[in-house]
Amino acid sequence: MTGKIPYGGDYNPEQWPRDVWDEDHRLFTRAGIDTLTVGVFSWSLTQPAEETYDFTVLDRVLDRAAAEGRQVCLATGTAALPPWLAKKYPEVNRTDFEGRRHRYGQRHNFCPSSPAYRRLSTAMAGRLAERYADHPALLAWHINNEYGGACYCERCADAFRDWLRDRYATLDALNDAWWTTFWSHRYTDWAEIEPPSALTEHWRGPDHTAFQGITLDYFRCTTDALLGCFLAEKEAIRRYDPETPVTTNFMGMFRPLDYHRWAPHLDFASWDSYPPLDAPPTWPALAHDLMRGLKDGAPFWLMEQTPSTTASRDVNPLRRPGELRLATFQAIAHGADAALYFQMRASRGACEKYHGAVIGHAGRDDTRVFGEVADLGKELGLLGDTTLGARTTARTALLFDWDSWWALDISDGPSRLVKYQEVVHTYYRAAREAGADVDVVPQTADLTAYDVVLAPVLHMVKGDLAGRLEAVAARGGSVLTTFLSGRVDAHDRAFLTDVPGPLAPLMGVRVDECDARQPEIAQSIPELGSEARLVFEIVQPRGAEPVATYGGDFYAGTPAVTRNAWGDGEAWYVATALDQPGVDQVIRRILTRHDLLGPYADHPAVETATRVAPDGTRILFVLNHATEAAPLTAPATVTDLLTGKRAEKGAPLALDPLGVAVLRLLS
Amino acid sequence: MTGKIPYGGDYNPEQWPRDVWDEDHRLFTRAGIDTLTVGVFSWSLTQPAEETYDFTVLDRVLDRAAAEGRQVCLATGTAALPPWLAKKYPEVNRTDFEGRRHRYGQRHNFCPSSPAYRRLSTAMAGRLAERYADHPALLAWHINNEYGGACYCERCADAFRDWLRDRYATLDALNDAWWTTFWSHRYTDWAEIEPPSALTEHWRGPDHTAFQGITLDYFRCTTDALLGCFLAEKEAIRRYDPETPVTTNFMGMFRPLDYHRWAPHLDFASWDSYPPLDAPPTWPALAHDLMRGLKDGAPFWLMEQTPSTTASRDVNPLRRPGELRLATFQAIAHGADAALYFQMRASRGACEKYHGAVIGHAGRDDTRVFGEVADLGKELGLLGDTTLGARTTARTALLFDWDSWWALDISDGPSRLVKYQEVVHTYYRAAREAGADVDVVPQTADLTAYDVVLAPVLHMVKGDLAGRLEAVAARGGSVLTTFLSGRVDAHDRAFLTDVPGPLAPLMGVRVDECDARQPEIAQSIPELGSEARLVFEIVQPRGAEPVATYGGDFYAGTPAVTRNAWGDGEAWYVATALDQPGVDQVIRRILTRHDLLGPYADHPAVETATRVAPDGTRILFVLNHATEAAPLTAPATVTDLLTGKRAEKGAPLALDPLGVAVLRLLS
Amino acid sequence: MTGKIPYGGDYNPEQWPRDVWDEDHRLFTRAGIDTLTVGVFSWSLTQPAEETYDFTVLDRVLDRAAAEGRQVCLATGTAALPPWLAKKYPEVNRTDFEGRRHRYGQRHNFCPSSPAYRRLSTAMAGRLAERYADHPALLAWHINNEYGGACYCERCADAFRDWLRDRYATLDALNDAWWTTFWSHRYTDWAEIEPPSALTEHWRGPDHTAFQGITLDYFRCTTDALLGCFLAEKEAIRRYDPETPVTTNFMGMFRPLDYHRWAPHLDFASWDSYPPLDAPPTWPALAHDLMRGLKDGAPFWLMEQTPSTTASRDVNPLRRPGELRLATFQAIAHGADAALYFQMRASRGACEKYHGAVIGHAGRDDTRVFGEVADLGKELGLLGDTTLGARTTARTALLFDWDSWWALDISDGPSRLVKYQEVVHTYYRAAREAGADVDVVPQTADLTAYDVVLAPVLHMVKGDLAGRLEAVAARGGSVLTTFLSGRVDAHDRAFLTDVPGPLAPLMGVRVDECDARQPEIAQSIPELGSEARLVFEIVQPRGAEPVATYGGDFYAGTPAVTRNAWGDGEAWYVATALDQPGVDQVIRRILTRHDLLGPYADHPAVETATRVAPDGTRILFVLNHATEAAPLTAPATVTDLLTGKRAEKGAPLALDPLGVAVLRLLS
Repeated sequence: MTGKIPYGGDYNPEQWPRDVWDEDHRLFTRAGIDTLTVGVFSWSLTQPAEETYDFTVLDRVLDRAAAEGRQVCLATGTAALPPWLAKKYPEVNRTDFEGRRHRYGQRHNFCPSSPAYRRLSTAMAGRLAERYADHPALLAWHINNEYGGACYCERCADAFRDWLRDRYATLDALNDAWWTTFWSHRYTDWAEIEPPSALTEHWRGPDHTAFQGITLDYFRCTTDALLGCFLAEKEAIRRYDPETPVTTNFMGMFRPLDYHRWAPHLDFASWDSYPPLDAPPTWPALAHDLMRGLKDGAPFWLMEQTPSTTASRDVNPLRRPGELRLATFQAIAHGADAALYFQMRASRGACEKYHGAVIGHAGRDDTRVFGEVADLGKELGLLGDTTLGARTTARTALLFDWDSWWALDISDGPSRLVKYQEVVHTYYRAAREAGADVDVVPQTADLTAYDVVLAPVLHMVKGDLAGRLEAVAARGGSVLTTFLSGRVDAHDRAFLTDVPGPLAPLMGVRVDECDARQPEIAQSIPELGSEARLVFEIVQPRGAEPVATYGGDFYAGTPAVTRNAWGDGEAWYVATALDQPGVDQVIRRILTRHDLLGPYADHPAVETATRVAPDGTRILFVLNHATEAAPLTAPATVTDLLTGKRAEKGAPLALDPLGVAVLRLLS
Repeated sequence: MTGKIPYGGDYNPEQWPRDVWDEDHRLFTRAGIDTLTVGVFSWSLTQPAEETYDFTVLDRVLDRAAAEGRQVCLATGTAALPPWLAKKYPEVNRTDFEGRRHRYGQRHNFCPSSPAYRRLSTAMAGRLAERYADHPALLAWHINNEYGGACYCERCADAFRDWLRDRYATLDALNDAWWTTFWSHRYTDWAEIEPPSALTEHWRGPDHTAFQGITLDYFRCTTDALLGCFLAEKEAIRRYDPETPVTTNFMGMFRPLDYHRWAPHLDFASWDSYPPLDAPPTWPALAHDLMRGLKDGAPFWLMEQTPSTTASRDVNPLRRPGELRLATFQAIAHGADAALYFQMRASRGACEKYHGAVIGHAGRDDTRVFGEVADLGKELGLLGDTTLGARTTARTALLFDWDSWWALDISDGPSRLVKYQEVVHTYYRAAREAGADVDVVPQTADLTAYDVVLAPVLHMVKGDLAGRLEAVAARGGSVLTTFLSGRVDAHDRAFLTDVPGPLAPLMGVRVDECDARQPEIAQSIPELGSEARLVFEIVQPRGAEPVATYGGDFYAGTPAVTRNAWGDGEAWYVATALDQPGVDQVIRRILTRHDLLGPYADHPAVETATRVAPDGTRILFVLNHATEAAPLTAPATVTDLLTGKRAEKGAPLALDPLGVAVLRLLS
Repeated sequence: MTGKIPYGGDYNPEQWPRDVWDEDHRLFTRAGIDTLTVGVFSWSLTQPAEETYDFTVLDRVLDRAAAEGRQVCLATGTAALPPWLAKKYPEVNRTDFEGRRHRYGQRHNFCPSSPAYRRLSTAMAGRLAERYADHPALLAWHINNEYGGACYCERCADAFRDWLRDRYATLDALNDAWWTTFWSHRYTDWAEIEPPSALTEHWRGPDHTAFQGITLDYFRCTTDALLGCFLAEKEAIRRYDPETPVTTNFMGMFRPLDYHRWAPHLDFASWDSYPPLDAPPTWPALAHDLMRGLKDGAPFWLMEQTPSTTASRDVNPLRRPGELRLATFQAIAHGADAALYFQMRASRGACEKYHGAVIGHAGRDDTRVFGEVADLGKELGLLGDTTLGARTTARTALLFDWDSWWALDISDGPSRLVKYQEVVHTYYRAAREAGADVDVVPQTADLTAYDVVLAPVLHMVKGDLAGRLEAVAARGGSVLTTFLSGRVDAHDRAFLTDVPGPLAPLMGVRVDECDARQPEIAQSIPELGSEARLVFEIVQPRGAEPVATYGGDFYAGTPAVTRNAWGDGEAWYVATALDQPGVDQVIRRILTRHDLLGPYADHPAVETATRVAPDGTRILFVLNHATEAAPLTAPATVTDLLTGKRAEKGAPLALDPLGVAVLRLLS
């Protein structure tokens, strides 16, 4: 790598004549762009027929990049099939949830169990590695693209049966895990098992299943099947290139794949950030921290973001002036060591032609967007290598668990309206706006480094987690969990004990009943001056003390929030979906106990994040998400790496609207 | 039967180890539970392979029940296929409305035309009867479970053609009935006829069809096809057990099946009551009365209700304290001779694990729900056999007609927004809240016992109904019908006379036009001080006198409600969808004429119902659906069967919030 | 033709016994009905088996019509297949967008590529022509019925490939047109190409495609495929009848078919007018003008409208008293030379039994509807032949472009909420309410006759249009276009120049960015006192002067509307979706410049339209769409053709609520 944050993005010169290439590189230089993601959609070009490989164009792209001093993130391009392949091997086309075998079209549509796909995709990866392993432009390998989706063909059904045989060994074990005696489902032959789909166990779509256990296992099996495709390509690359780091671009909080199962197999994590409309800044931040958590806190790449607008939504607003810069520095603040766009030049045709690009259809360099991209390129140059490899040293952990997400989303009862991501985000946001750095980690993570562990809506509790949470509290830490936690084991079987199951001793509560109400019905929580909605567990304290209570209904006066002393620490239980102000109060009480409020905790629109460079340099990012200026003071003696200015502790530190400061902490 | 209301519910001990069984029976005894529904989902256990039957577990369940003094409602379990059956005979899996052959999954998914299903389900029923006919615990047979749904496979298409041949004999008759000359549909061969589906006559789902006549006949044919499955099992049982009563559990106002076609074949009716969220108490009451009407007023069983919460809805609230008791006594008030739950012990896994149960996952007997169940068990013990076999002696009948429901729901024009159930409920509610007992009966019912006959939205008029309604009025009774009544014959062909067709003479009106408006547009009805919506028929009196008129639009001043003298009685026509207050006024005028207002007609939240026991004892149920106490006075000299207290006529009779009194009428 | 406007409609006596026919003709005579559309759904009657033709009934219908002095529009009836055909040749049933082969049902459901359908439909058309070419009642040929829909079967896939080979000749040209290098779609064999469907390029339904170019070509190919069916039938007719005019009934603004591709092949245009609920009167007027524009302004037929109510909608209101008359004269005002209904007698069964009819189920002639129909029949008699063949002489043109409609609807980005029809209608409405006659014409139309050319949301600009628009302005005319115009070429490839592409020089603007916002967010446009929504292009004037600006957001103060001087004329650019008052102001400024405001421009509910008869007679239609009387004055000396009254210029000319005046202009 060069000694600075790689900057650039997806580049598809194969769509354009050669004179456009010249113009591209002239503009890249103007914008400080040094890194190009190449080949994501080039399979139909590099292999126009099964027996024909043609790397002429790719050679030129990489050679030109090298000649211009740019580095290349080289994609294997196996996410978008060439037409001949789909025609010759119909098996590569997926069979969808409705049981329909698709024909050629779109992308991300290959059956992960297809032998032809496996053979041809690994052959391509191998050929690319053989050819470019030593190319001077090569910076990293980018396998496939945005893995996702599922297939329900006969081959995948067989693969599912094999996966189950590996997992359960016997049908008795499987019948027990899935609780098949319910609804007369006891299997007597592996061949009787069908993938859970609209034609078998599901109704009203993918989230309504007769057997949660079957559907959860299919989610896991699909995760592993696509991971298998990735690993096969990686192995093919490694045959020729033992060194260059390998990644694939994730999609943040992406439900279909449990990225925690993938994480060990990546050399570094990378992801594409397209936050939903009107998402608060903590939404992409949560995803950044989740991605950083994949590799135990190692930096990740921001592999894609749009420089201006998306195209795929019903409504696609522009990023306002300054928003791109702010979002990019936010990514870096949370651990990004690269900042890349989709895409360098706008496609002329098809469904992404109106997607934002660094260079628009008219090829201009005097647009607002190009100007902002180029200005940002200069700033990243100023940062140099300061942030590369830097790590976050959070004392707060938030458990993020795909199994719980899945289990909650497909659960019948008590309420379909509870959304895992939203509840998790509420707690994350409270901690972040209070100024705490947060590691977002799996259930299996080592928790010994944390003072605070938040485990909201942890529906499924696996392995020895309860004991490890108890240890956190025992040594003085604070643990929080919420309603709908501790309900089921790894097979989605209810624990045969009081709710919240294995967490009940630590929490010091017992829950027999959970009320659910329509979203327009709010419960007041008088002690917090806040409201709660959707679900209301009725808590009987078993050692815990009530912190806040329900203001109404037949459970008026019973606890809505409790705290339980445990060793030197404490355990919090939140029995209902508090609104954000309610969660804020709970989280700030916990953070205060551990002295974890940040310097700008009273400025909720001001985000801070700290990274520590390999050489020990501490860098404080201060991000003003408001459209008004933020009149702050320096929290320590600092030097702003973007302006070079120094400020003593307590001196004014004014941030512009949407402004950013990258401060080296000197004291 | 034992000398009291059977109390208990669905019990699936096959899901649990034996030590749990011991605990179950200990808790059953505590809760006064004497009746267990067994075997509903046990097929995969009792027949693990085609040639292997294994009744070991079922033997134990029944023997244990008998030993504990409990009685068993024994299910044939044929609603939930074992996996091997679906694998070995793919024909048993249904082909859905979209033309997709399903594979193994869920339940209630067998093709009613499958020879394999017929053979194996009747074999199972026969084997069970052979084995348990004389078992001391056996109380009743429960065939299959919640019959419903439809299949569109080739076998069902052939069965449909056979059914049509039976019904019409000739294609000319069929072409005439379906009015096939419209849209060039004249059939020249029975084989040309296709079941009406998304691939043939339907668009925008099951309610939009090109030919109402075809779709109606498929509804009827499906009703008969599933009835055929029931009858085949019943016949198999009767081969070994000529005595024990046989039922299957219905679902109240369940559109897919015309239960009136089934009723003659049941030994007693039973149903599962899961009222929709926020339904007023008259909603399940209407269903109770419909179920009681199936067997000419004979008592029915409440086969299932939840002790606390459902799981299958988006939002699943708890039954509030007291609601379970109130709902159970409401069922008994309307004719239930059994009170059963789904289910005794919460399933550990799959889609009903969060469904309410008498015993929860933690197995406790100190929960609120268990406490309420046990208290209710005691009260039912107090009632003893007093209510068993008692009948309602209503002087008001409400015609409920599946054909009209279907015809209205699939009608193109005038308005898709008119909902049969809702209109019917409006009239039912008005009568019930005014204190009248109501029999809900089919068009074919004997009407000679009634003073008042309500026939709202009776879209289809069949047979000699018009004459029988005229006879009701002629002898002094009151008949009411409404907009969209009397429109079509049994084949959904418009009557070629003035609307409301055969009812026009009795009603003394002529209707040429029907306006329909968006739901936000209300018409004032000044004489009633109420509003009307959705449809507005323009009435020309032909003998009838206007009772109320439209307040606006181009038909301002024309009649919205009319009354026609007929013999000693009268006929009311309501030409528009009046709101509840408007319907209340009309109904109370009618009831007043016949002295049918109840003692608490001014307390709309207080429900009354009277049952007369076989020995002539008159029992008055008084149910307070309000969450405030009801300060009533005794309508006669009474003894409260639950408290033993006596009250003289006119003495205070205070009901608690959600309170219940079961009064023996002494004067 | 007889010397008056043909009056009548769809007539299906084959559904009824002979005595009803007698009654029909008695009533027709009473209502002034002289024209009957016959045979639309008679295929199963006229050809009950492949080898059997039977014209007995049709003979009688036509003979009787002739005997009664009525004329017949004779349908070939090929839109509704007979059952035997679908059974014998399953290929004739369509395969839908989801890939499902349908079976027999409904109508409009034939595969356009089916050889059996082609052979049998043309055979029928030929036989009919052979038999009835010289029948005295024959007035016109009506081929098929409401062509529409699409098929995705293998035959249609092959037909698509053939169509593409014709269009592109080489795969290189096709790959370039579709921009297939995007997402690795380079085709190497024509056989690899699949129709774009839910199983290939589409997701979330027909409007979301990965490749706009493929989907657009399938829309075009489908248009041509159905046109091929029409042409084959027309050719079969012409073999026996070289004279009688041939049409098929269109459906106005009907997205599936580009009627401009069909127009040259019709002898005259005709259409079925069923305006959406609550549509303003300019909505059907726009469709009338579009239909008139198909044949260069020649009169068209109103082939269907309902005399009272539709049946197919969720809510089907009655036409209020006077609305039918008003709508009929509106059609005539816009160029209709026939006024026909669906239908003469209400069907007794099936999905249109509640559709309005001249004669209802009871067969009465004393209904309101029959009365209005008969009164209108008299008035049309009074008009005689005055309006026949008359033409509109508009100086304003509005470009209507199916390609732009399609391209906009399937575009990813910037906003799915912009609806082509609605934006076009806003501009049309503004011009019409200001009193301008408007020709609605294709992009290819000769524009030399127009002072004003409106081209709203002209997403796709084809051929030499830009030059021809420049010529309009150069010679003093005014040209207007809007946001999202000039974006793509005929293959939906973005222009590689500044937006609005080829229109940019004329407009004198440059657009780099387009913001899109949720519909609840409005932008104020201070200069117009109006609001804008959905999309907000950021305009940089390049010669144009700002007329109005954005009031807020980061582009506050930049132009929302501009005007550019060009030769003797000017070019207007509207960069955002102005509300109706905003568009009204812009359009009135343009019309004023050309002295095109009508006499009643201050009465927006009063519509005017002028037609000039072949003999030079000028007829001014004045239509009062308000439910209050309109106190107007005569705009010239006129004679009212309906009343015979003469009014001097400036004299009072009062129109009743919903009133109509048909004025011969004398001065």
